[in-house]
Amino acid sequence: MHQIRSAQPSDVSTILRFIRELAEFEKLAHMVATTEEILSNSLFGNDAKAYCLIAEHEGEAAGFCIYFYNFSTFLGRPGIYIEDIYVTPSHRSAGLGRRFFEYLAAKATAEQCGRLEWWVLDWNQRAIDFYKRLGAEPMDEWTVYRISGDGLTNLATSKEENAA
Amino acid sequence: MHQIRSAQPSDVSTILRFIRELAEFEKLAHMVATTEEILSNSLFGNDAKAYCLIAEHEGEAAGFCIYFYNFSTFLGRPGIYIEDIYVTPSHRSAGLGRRFFEYLAAKATAEQCGRLEWWVLDWNQRAIDFYKRLGAEPMDEWTVYRISGDGLTNLATSKEENAA
Repeated sequence: MHQIRSAQPSDVSTILRFIRELAEFEKLAHMVATTEEILSNSLFGNDAKAYCLIAEHEGEAAGFCIYFYNFSTFLGRPGIYIEDIYVTPSHRSAGLGRRFFEYLAAKATAEQCGRLEWWVLDWNQRAIDFYKRLGAEPMDEWTVYRISGDGLTNLATSKEENAA
Repeated sequence: MHQIRSAQPSDVSTILRFIRELAEFEKLAHMVATTEEILSNSLFGNDAKAYCLIAEHEGEAAGFCIYFYNFSTFLGRPGIYIEDIYVTPSHRSAGLGRRFFEYLAAKATAEQCGRLEWWVLDWNQRAIDFYKRLGAEPMDEWTVYRISGDGLTNLATSKEENAA
């Protein structure tokens, strides 16, 4: 029997293991810079702004999902954004991915969040086909821009220069 | 003299006016479904998950910015996501847009948030050129998917059917 539940602080080592497995799968293991301590603070601290779900199969953790709240200015209300979903290889094809989406759709509806969003790599056709079956639509007209690393530091510094 | 400051509950009527002006500019005025009451709760309530900045010119509100915290699973830390920036027509070309970016870059750096992100309509070349000058990079490989309205309700309902 499968179920989806909210993660607890005692799940943090499992969550870190799943993050590493996910990164291996995406061939991005070198990008994982988090630790149990960082995750404990980010997901379960007083100021936590992201949330984690655990999928279980007969009491065993079989996957995780991390989400947070985004915002629609025109609605004036939050939406739910799914950052990651991961199901362990031995539990795939059991519908757990879909269960996470259903769980968060029900949560979004109950909390009057107008929408559920996530992003996908354009070459991941299997995932895209699945999302379309769920009823999702691509926001094709939009592109996300990012500043990180030195770019972020430089922009932060130019604030200080303006203020001086 | 310009300055950027955190919005206060007493700014809510100004924020709603700016949201309507922004929607007019985008020819999306019919999409604005929010009210002062909804915004007060979403931006200043106990459970607020989005935040607002106000740009001022000689004490007069000249624009606003709404942001929230997103999350990097691999870093295990939040980032800052900019949902909207709006500057009133009479205060444009004074660098206020850039000031919002600098303010949030400094905030992201101070709070150990690894990145600053936002999205842009692909045809908005003037904005894209500006973002590139800031040092931002397009996440070209990704597309955002969204479920809302009936699709969201249907997905939420299929959870209940599975549970029954």
